[in-house]
Amino acid sequence: MSNFDAKMAQYIKLTEENLSKYNDHTESNAPQKELIDAMNYSLEAGGKRVRPALVYAFCEALGGSLTSAIAPACAIEMIHTFSLIHDDLPAMDNDDFRRGKPSCHKKFGEAMAILAGDALSVLPYEIIADSPDLTADQKVLIISVLANSVGRDGMIGGQVIDMLNEERSDVTEEELRNMYRCKTGQLIAVSCVMGAICADASRETLRSAAEYGLRLGLAFQIIDDILDVTSTQEELGKPIGSDERENKTTFVTLFGLEKAIELADKATSEALEWLDSVEDNAFLKELTEKLLRRKN
Amino acid sequence: MSNFDAKMAQYIKLTEENLSKYNDHTESNAPQKELIDAMNYSLEAGGKRVRPALVYAFCEALGGSLTSAIAPACAIEMIHTFSLIHDDLPAMDNDDFRRGKPSCHKKFGEAMAILAGDALSVLPYEIIADSPDLTADQKVLIISVLANSVGRDGMIGGQVIDMLNEERSDVTEEELRNMYRCKTGQLIAVSCVMGAICADASRETLRSAAEYGLRLGLAFQIIDDILDVTSTQEELGKPIGSDERENKTTFVTLFGLEKAIELADKATSEALEWLDSVEDNAFLKELTEKLLRRKN
Repeated sequence: MSNFDAKMAQYIKLTEENLSKYNDHTESNAPQKELIDAMNYSLEAGGKRVRPALVYAFCEALGGSLTSAIAPACAIEMIHTFSLIHDDLPAMDNDDFRRGKPSCHKKFGEAMAILAGDALSVLPYEIIADSPDLTADQKVLIISVLANSVGRDGMIGGQVIDMLNEERSDVTEEELRNMYRCKTGQLIAVSCVMGAICADASRETLRSAAEYGLRLGLAFQIIDDILDVTSTQEELGKPIGSDERENKTTFVTLFGLEKAIELADKATSEALEWLDSVEDNAFLKELTEKLLRRKN
Repeated sequence: MSNFDAKMAQYIKLTEENLSKYNDHTESNAPQKELIDAMNYSLEAGGKRVRPALVYAFCEALGGSLTSAIAPACAIEMIHTFSLIHDDLPAMDNDDFRRGKPSCHKKFGEAMAILAGDALSVLPYEIIADSPDLTADQKVLIISVLANSVGRDGMIGGQVIDMLNEERSDVTEEELRNMYRCKTGQLIAVSCVMGAICADASRETLRSAAEYGLRLGLAFQIIDDILDVTSTQEELGKPIGSDERENKTTFVTLFGLEKAIELADKATSEALEWLDSVEDNAFLKELTEKLLRRKN
């Protein structure tokens, strides 16, 4: 196994082990056991665990202790999972499957899925506030930047913009970039920033981490647009061509495939430049390049 | 105006003014303006503002500065509002009206209501973390107790238990008390505790505040059960008799009306006893008694 793969495997293991611990229930006969089952069902559904890996990688690259990054790494994965559960709801994207398994509301019913998402959106603040491995100042700063990236001016605001854009055929490049920045970019950026906070990085380094994350998030989203056209259902794990069927504005519909690939390259190069100020950046560089070349 | 009414009016004004400030949007042309409108629509729908009043009252009674209580007071009202928005959804209680106005999803659509609830569940942690009037240690403790009372072992867990109980006809007194404690009691208790934290109260006083709040929450909920039988639609602002129609187990169905009134009295008396250790408790005593005698 390469150094990169070993490190990634370590980060994933640390994330998954601690997600289970945080959402364990000592009283196994608690009447709300089904809620905890629904939360765990979606947490365990897998995915690339890119966001927690970024928290760990920034913390380590800047000389922080990996242990201190556990709470924010699990927090960001809980928030990502909460957003997927609510996104899949009938009133939202109405998706019956997620990563090849029935989506949370298909498995547990709509009411339970709403509440499982709600519970996963709250638990992050509790585990960060209760972490024995962070100072009070670190916790306050992490919670401030995290809640800001999730809320009305971040991910949730981005979902609203995405929803409103679906009814329009005249979405501009600037509007699309703003939507991607809110919906995807900020949560990826805050993963990097939280890792840097765990390492007590300077304000300047926090800014580099955020700028890197925003560009990585943009590249990530453009590649999603590209894969929807170029991939196969088998590789992607979900039906392809859905953007075209839903008349969505994407980087591919705005610019064509070739230019979209160019723009994903450009965003990736810019992301890499922001890594220059990060000391031990080998893992992060490889991760950035791997995400550009991903097939799903 | 009595001292009590003047104080209550002050607390309500402080809450409503700051809720507007916290959810203002400087860029009035933000594309997610509709989300902010939906959040404000439900925040402004009114209600008794009991929870923020408890935050302010405990803070003041224990010698804290009112300003420090603004963020947690608005936070708890946001969380209460988020829970009402999600409760009213078609997949949950399917209520078209809330306090005489169309519920959030009737006004803004189901997807927007889900997202408005989500955004109101996150903003509290941001405003507490960003408050200029609390120390880092106060913020961390407030966020820890708040998130714990909201999540799977608090309000959200209680909603799940409530939902599961609806399918059963053999709910016991102990199960009902546990459900009320989770669903209503913990959020009322944490309001008191947060006020006490703002005043830097001792651990012992924090416990008294929590014990008071749990009993007040129980009394509050038993009185809800009673009003559903004894009130009129005009007084209550919503249809009466809904518990019976929905075959819900309540204190009235378990014990009959007379005994339920007795138990509400008992919970109120017990709540009042826990106020003995609170220095300046006149407002809190009057509030407790007023809530016992409320008609809606």
